[in-house]
Amino acid sequence: MPRKAKNLFIALFLSTVVSSGCASGAFAKSSELASWNDGPSKQSILDFVKAVTDKKSEFYVKPEDRIAVFDNDGTLFCEQPMYTQIRFAMDRAKQLAEKDPALKDKEPFKWAVQNDSTALVAAGARGSMELIAATHSGMDTDEFATIAKQWAETAIHPRFKKPYVECVYKPMLEVLDYLRKNEFKTYIVSGGGIEFMRAWTDRVYDIPPEQVVGSSCKLKYEVKDGKPEIEHLGEIDFIDDGEQKPVGIEKFIGKRPIAAFGNSDGDLAMLQWTAGGKGKRLAAIVHHTDATREFAYDRDSKIGRLNKALDEATEKHWTVINMKSDWNKVFSFD
Amino acid sequence: MPRKAKNLFIALFLSTVVSSGCASGAFAKSSELASWNDGPSKQSILDFVKAVTDKKSEFYVKPEDRIAVFDNDGTLFCEQPMYTQIRFAMDRAKQLAEKDPALKDKEPFKWAVQNDSTALVAAGARGSMELIAATHSGMDTDEFATIAKQWAETAIHPRFKKPYVECVYKPMLEVLDYLRKNEFKTYIVSGGGIEFMRAWTDRVYDIPPEQVVGSSCKLKYEVKDGKPEIEHLGEIDFIDDGEQKPVGIEKFIGKRPIAAFGNSDGDLAMLQWTAGGKGKRLAAIVHHTDATREFAYDRDSKIGRLNKALDEATEKHWTVINMKSDWNKVFSFD
Repeated sequence: MPRKAKNLFIALFLSTVVSSGCASGAFAKSSELASWNDGPSKQSILDFVKAVTDKKSEFYVKPEDRIAVFDNDGTLFCEQPMYTQIRFAMDRAKQLAEKDPALKDKEPFKWAVQNDSTALVAAGARGSMELIAATHSGMDTDEFATIAKQWAETAIHPRFKKPYVECVYKPMLEVLDYLRKNEFKTYIVSGGGIEFMRAWTDRVYDIPPEQVVGSSCKLKYEVKDGKPEIEHLGEIDFIDDGEQKPVGIEKFIGKRPIAAFGNSDGDLAMLQWTAGGKGKRLAAIVHHTDATREFAYDRDSKIGRLNKALDEATEKHWTVINMKSDWNKVFSFD
Repeated sequence: MPRKAKNLFIALFLSTVVSSGCASGAFAKSSELASWNDGPSKQSILDFVKAVTDKKSEFYVKPEDRIAVFDNDGTLFCEQPMYTQIRFAMDRAKQLAEKDPALKDKEPFKWAVQNDSTALVAAGARGSMELIAATHSGMDTDEFATIAKQWAETAIHPRFKKPYVECVYKPMLEVLDYLRKNEFKTYIVSGGGIEFMRAWTDRVYDIPPEQVVGSSCKLKYEVKDGKPEIEHLGEIDFIDDGEQKPVGIEKFIGKRPIAAFGNSDGDLAMLQWTAGGKGKRLAAIVHHTDATREFAYDRDSKIGRLNKALDEATEKHWTVINMKSDWNKVFSFD
């Protein structure tokens, strides 16, 4: 467990130290981006899309090069009060303990069965490592996808009392739609586990599996009793966070995005890489400023820390989305 | 150089020990697949596409799940008499030696300058390793793409005296088009270098960079003098061949293909993985049987060896395309 579990934990941990906002839009009717209040953030989205889609514009970009990348946790999806994938692992631990009651009194299953997130937090990195390792490994890709999909359809967010997958930001769903209407190809580029996300991104964001880039474990192909299988190995292959995000983009997409949306320091390199290309670019950060409707956190948060990227955004005049003032709705269920 | 160069060589070597054929088709007019002679191979393509696209068929597949994967070298593209990427490396060595004449008398540049493929072959794996390492590393992704693209537009095949990138199989281009007309998404899944292929697959096959899966070197993101760059490191990250092909498919696409086309033992796992799914599947092998119009090779070839996969294809009734009898044209320039 040590090395494998540690790697898994690092991936998950990093996946949530990230997050971010967004911007882009042109030929927009006033009905576009309806959950956005008028102001510089919304305008920067509209201006950007107009500039790159208008054939007369000096910044015109052909549809095939209209690549927009979105971090997931904290950018499209609520990442508080607990890493989504840790929550998934806890729920999975409960299921396993139901099937095998002997597990109920053993850590890490015990914490999950008793909903004891305090004990989980107290057990620190090692506790999370044990939980993830105990619940994610030893199955093939089909089994994992089925389990993750089931979870996505049933898990309830502890604060909002809504299915976890409904805790996505409505204004960001509007941006995804708006960009796609303007012939952008929208990608998730997240530190989250690639297969965990692929189980539900299609339904939730209308983003198919092949447009999801994330952290991954090593996989192994083999033919067992005449049946070909791809099995999850408990060893990390790629951690799609921080300076690895541009690498993941180059690897999976092979094109430099013209728009990027993040919410934390883990997205900084992706924002730099996007903003550093030629022509008009959109680099945007979702700033979590609304403790009433969602959560307020930035420079000192353990989850989704936004510190260096906030400074660089200010210095480089990137779009910083103020959730409190820029969004008239946060969730569809508001 | 040892480790790095060895890895690079392995990737290139493996990339060409692979290759394969194809099949699929429905609602086909007789004008479809015009370079194919009537017969079981063509029919298997037509029958497959009909079965998965007809809404009344028990094998109907939704458009978003119509994933078709194609090996490159030997399946879409002539891989004889020399690994394409080795040829690219030789041409690149000549360019470098022109800029720096001191290199002309040094190996491996000397072999390239003198067009001495005999010496290159005599130098064995080590020679190829040195050549590739000397010509592929130490540049960022933009520079590499520019160089590879220039090469693709100017390099001439030694036997056919045509631009290298015209040495693609016309019947296979027709299959790509035919599948796309039937709402398939077509991917390259090749042992070749991903960035080398991406430089020209769009123009040659109408397959965009994000639909190319291949072997890759490690990349490094960094900001140099305020400019973000992704640099090629001379170390292999992923070798997309043999049992790694299904892994590459799972990693990059996240969906199991319903059609796969290969030509060598390096494609066997990809064909198994595709054929092993539920419903109607198409697994096809291009068998190089035409020494007059192209090359004839299979079980004993060092390039594109087709041995185990040929046995398994026979046993499992996959489509084995006989280039000599199934194709009335091999290249567009025939």
